[in-house]
Amino acid sequence: MRLEQVDTPALVLELDAFERNLKLMAAAIAGRGVRLRPHAKTHKCPEIAKRQLLAGAFGVCCQKVSEAEALVEGGVADVLVSNEVVGAPKLERLAALARRARIGVCVDDAANVRALQAAAQAAGASLDVYVEIDVGAARCGVPPGEPALLLAREVAGSAPLRFAGLQAYHGPAQHLRSAGDRRAAIARAAQAAHQSRRLIESAGVACPVVTGAGSGSFAYEIESGAYDEIQPGSYVFMDADYARNEWPAPLARFDHALFVLGTVMSRPSEQRAVLDAGLKASSVDSGLPIVWERPGLRYARASDEHGVLEIAAGAPAPALGDKLLLVPGHCDPTVNLHDWYVCVRHGVVEALWPITARGAGY
Amino acid sequence: MRLEQVDTPALVLELDAFERNLKLMAAAIAGRGVRLRPHAKTHKCPEIAKRQLLAGAFGVCCQKVSEAEALVEGGVADVLVSNEVVGAPKLERLAALARRARIGVCVDDAANVRALQAAAQAAGASLDVYVEIDVGAARCGVPPGEPALLLAREVAGSAPLRFAGLQAYHGPAQHLRSAGDRRAAIARAAQAAHQSRRLIESAGVACPVVTGAGSGSFAYEIESGAYDEIQPGSYVFMDADYARNEWPAPLARFDHALFVLGTVMSRPSEQRAVLDAGLKASSVDSGLPIVWERPGLRYARASDEHGVLEIAAGAPAPALGDKLLLVPGHCDPTVNLHDWYVCVRHGVVEALWPITARGAGY
Repeated sequence: MRLEQVDTPALVLELDAFERNLKLMAAAIAGRGVRLRPHAKTHKCPEIAKRQLLAGAFGVCCQKVSEAEALVEGGVADVLVSNEVVGAPKLERLAALARRARIGVCVDDAANVRALQAAAQAAGASLDVYVEIDVGAARCGVPPGEPALLLAREVAGSAPLRFAGLQAYHGPAQHLRSAGDRRAAIARAAQAAHQSRRLIESAGVACPVVTGAGSGSFAYEIESGAYDEIQPGSYVFMDADYARNEWPAPLARFDHALFVLGTVMSRPSEQRAVLDAGLKASSVDSGLPIVWERPGLRYARASDEHGVLEIAAGAPAPALGDKLLLVPGHCDPTVNLHDWYVCVRHGVVEALWPITARGAGY
Repeated sequence: MRLEQVDTPALVLELDAFERNLKLMAAAIAGRGVRLRPHAKTHKCPEIAKRQLLAGAFGVCCQKVSEAEALVEGGVADVLVSNEVVGAPKLERLAALARRARIGVCVDDAANVRALQAAAQAAGASLDVYVEIDVGAARCGVPPGEPALLLAREVAGSAPLRFAGLQAYHGPAQHLRSAGDRRAAIARAAQAAHQSRRLIESAGVACPVVTGAGSGSFAYEIESGAYDEIQPGSYVFMDADYARNEWPAPLARFDHALFVLGTVMSRPSEQRAVLDAGLKASSVDSGLPIVWERPGLRYARASDEHGVLEIAAGAPAPALGDKLLLVPGHCDPTVNLHDWYVCVRHGVVEALWPITARGAGY
């Protein structure tokens, strides 16, 4: 089937661009002494995770136990839940999963460490446990320094849990538009991670891994020397929001590989076309989608099931029934709206990859 | 199971409030000479549609062919797709569906009418076809007046299509905060609909039904006398965005019946709690969720999997593991993130209703 025959709205993965992005990331980290653990919260798809592993990734990460279950079920053997997991039902599931694969998880609370230990003991499983430190995101995590040491000791003394190191991710830094601002934010994060690690190790507790970083900042985490592992997710797809970042050399510039295909379902006026892809097809939390390679067409408004396009004076206007590609504003929640990727190469559908962790929020 | 035992994030339907909303709507239209065709794009759930029908609705509407398929499959016998349907695959499916149920659809283009006619003929099916007029929304639809008459004639002459009337929905008017502004916008819409109908009927074409209206404006469509049928959707759930509207008497005030249940998964500081429900659990396109009945807690920021709550000085702070209810900012796209409703009465789970049209965007 050709792309033009695919019914809409559809989530389209351009395989050539996707594969270039995998290679670009492998090249960016080659010889830099860090390992790659891509974030599968972005794609929620074991088929993609397996290709990341083939391209050199050490393992993957995700945010939810149910995502980890879908990844392990799909054949992934090493998954870090880069997030806290709270509540007996989830801890039970996590511990059960740790009997089938190497599983990591983050903590920022001593009582949660004890609950995790109890769940692991009950399941006869062991887990890698990372202490999350807040390196500037003001979300989860203990403060760097003494609180990190205290919690690391708690974990290290809680067999069958293994203290695996520090989670040090600075989310808001990913979208600072200026490269200088991102570099400065990550320099502060890296310093906090580095000092926490030294404090922990000088107290006699081995701290094997500092992990973190995202697609907008990973070059700076690598540059800092403080990180052993990076967790970029969006690089495989490259959405419109990340494209608004400044990407100066030598930062890897990724290609747009993820699109939403929509059909023009109404042409009510010279200046207006309406697409059948609204905010239930492409998440608008980080801005509207961009119309791909159709100069003069602007996605101006999204409602639930409609996207209103403005047609600039003199621009080639789309006809009723025409299909257009959109670059989503934010890839992660857009993927979570769809059940499969329509994988396309040179305009021909090559595969459908199910998004098996779609809706896996638990 | 009690509500506190439900794992999170979960989409919760408070049955008492939901049933009150059904009754309130029935009371609001009783004796007013309009029929109720609730919008199922909001809930995507045949179980809810059937309860709306039992509460007096004439049929339901939706926006997509795949939603209509899910509704008919779930036992609903009368569905209006209140939207244009473009492209052979969708028209084929729509026509096939019209052999199993009474199906309506909207048009705003003559070529689309011919394609619809061909699909209906090929399937041996007939459909109710409504001409959509643009009454102020600046989205789909032909202008009121002559263009509506021209297209109505086209439909009326295209057996086995039946010209069923006019679709006249003013979307943006739903969220005008001032009741006076909403009344004025709907007065203009109603006048456009009324004049178009007169023009069509004076040309000898019967125009049986004018349909439209939403939860924010239906009282004014009823008041206008120009509408035979109203299409409110959100009234069954009442989200945070609609709650910001001014609802003066005698407008029906609906209760919040839809919630997202989240767990406190981190308590990194005195002033901050982090919930496991972010923008993949509650859509933020129309504003952040509201924390329900927990004074002093404010949902301040959403990221993909996290909601950051600010705790006011002196407010009762939630503990790690506590579960909180959120009123979603916008109900329709929030429902589309979940696979089932956890239906609760007096704090006890009474049923799970599958959201069978979740992700049905085709």
